[in-house]
Amino acid sequence: MTPCLRGRCYSRGVKIIRTIEQMRAAAREVRRAGKRLGFVPTMGALHAGHMALVRAARSQADAVCVSIFVNPTQFGPKEDLSKYPRPFEKDCELLAAEKVDFLFYPDVAEMYPAGAITWVEVAGMSERLDGKSRPGHFRGVTTIVSKLFHAVEPDVAFFGQKDAAQAAIIRRMARDLDLDTRIVICPTVREPDGLALSSRNIFLSPQERKRAVVLSRALNRIQFHADKGERRAAELLRIGAGVMAEEPEIKLDYFEIVNNDTLEPVEDVSAGALVAVAAFVGTTRLIDNLVLFGGRQASGPETKA
Amino acid sequence: MTPCLRGRCYSRGVKIIRTIEQMRAAAREVRRAGKRLGFVPTMGALHAGHMALVRAARSQADAVCVSIFVNPTQFGPKEDLSKYPRPFEKDCELLAAEKVDFLFYPDVAEMYPAGAITWVEVAGMSERLDGKSRPGHFRGVTTIVSKLFHAVEPDVAFFGQKDAAQAAIIRRMARDLDLDTRIVICPTVREPDGLALSSRNIFLSPQERKRAVVLSRALNRIQFHADKGERRAAELLRIGAGVMAEEPEIKLDYFEIVNNDTLEPVEDVSAGALVAVAAFVGTTRLIDNLVLFGGRQASGPETKA
Repeated sequence: MTPCLRGRCYSRGVKIIRTIEQMRAAAREVRRAGKRLGFVPTMGALHAGHMALVRAARSQADAVCVSIFVNPTQFGPKEDLSKYPRPFEKDCELLAAEKVDFLFYPDVAEMYPAGAITWVEVAGMSERLDGKSRPGHFRGVTTIVSKLFHAVEPDVAFFGQKDAAQAAIIRRMARDLDLDTRIVICPTVREPDGLALSSRNIFLSPQERKRAVVLSRALNRIQFHADKGERRAAELLRIGAGVMAEEPEIKLDYFEIVNNDTLEPVEDVSAGALVAVAAFVGTTRLIDNLVLFGGRQASGPETKA
Repeated sequence: MTPCLRGRCYSRGVKIIRTIEQMRAAAREVRRAGKRLGFVPTMGALHAGHMALVRAARSQADAVCVSIFVNPTQFGPKEDLSKYPRPFEKDCELLAAEKVDFLFYPDVAEMYPAGAITWVEVAGMSERLDGKSRPGHFRGVTTIVSKLFHAVEPDVAFFGQKDAAQAAIIRRMARDLDLDTRIVICPTVREPDGLALSSRNIFLSPQERKRAVVLSRALNRIQFHADKGERRAAELLRIGAGVMAEEPEIKLDYFEIVNNDTLEPVEDVSAGALVAVAAFVGTTRLIDNLVLFGGRQASGPETKA
């Protein structure tokens, strides 16, 4: 299936929309019918984690819009923008199986016409965690999400807890900019052995795939010790680092325990905390996280913006 | 008249709204009735320039919302935030006389709750003209305007050409962020002697008031020479500077000829240009400008965002 360049067409019952103007018109029709619109922004290469977001949207809204847009402004100059997977036909099949109402699939020129220079940035938080190792990444994320929200104007939008810093930053952006969209964060979906699902997992060699499970193993060990009573972040991180060291081929990017609303480091996890890890498995950068003691759990309705 | 702190009340038939949530509900009612909502964001201290915006809104929309919010984030630390005029009762009278439907009048805590850290910024343009002498000013403007747009969700919004750089930056922001609001720029309103109306004119002593007319006189001289055939920006600026020098007490902040879409300097004005001047008259900073050869004239419908 080749998507039409302008205008709409359908793939297996999913309406494919390629322009902001037509997306806005479609969303307006939904609203005019008194229906609630749920939105799942993605970069495609859909996996069961995305599909859990789609099903959450289906359960909380009357119509579901998914966007697929590999957003160039959130990739660094040396990152994997060009090789990011784009299995469009398979994505369409998955969305059709979930009876998604609209697939918003704009091209880069539609989202970033020549001369686009406006940024939305959550100052401070955007430089933490992934923002530290990927400068400009979260500025690209918040800018595209606010543009997508302006096009789709969803009642409720769904993001995965797997991207924990992104989730916190988008919640903050929605609140700070008074967006009329409720943000819902859904739990991380995992492989049976614990590896968090990611579109980048396909880059892993069989050996790397086996090693990669160490991220979730480290988080599980931290959960175990926290449940046993350990509250000191430094000690929990020491325990986690010990597990990570079992795979010396894996290069740690960050391993931090932070406040899940501000992303600022915490010393004690009693009041809830986000344990976040990022590491290079070969050349593939993977992330994972764990929310301790209800420090804003994924799932369920989140902050009403 | 004391505005109520929460909830709505009326002043001379104008509905005063103090919270984003209630503003959104009121705007939604307008839309539900199939009406178009026009919006005029202001910092109050209304004068005939603002009222021209209100009348433009009335002529192009079915319902008119005016906001009054002295936005702290667009003032520098040494600027006149605390002494900015706030004649609220007189403003209400003026709005009532124009049968404005809604006055959105939030307080600072409503627009900037503790912990607000998200900015909207038009990179590059925000550092030009007033942005050069007022660092962070336009970032504050674009952030509050996008927040106000999210609260009011207007079909069309009105700004004055007097703030030429602001007008260009807001047009750009609306386009870049795909805002569903048409931006209309209305012509500068002037005193009989040519002085551009400004809420800050009340700060001028009688003598300063007389001197201040030199800004529009310099622009008029430039217009005259441009009409006579002069196209070189440097020569036109030399002519304008000569007029400004007639008032040696006035300290020039900037005098530039730029592209009215990008605010970048131009050497030749044939294709249209913005001539912009800012100067301190005593301690009061005044600005004025002139659009040459249709370099995007004020008035009439502007870029559909």
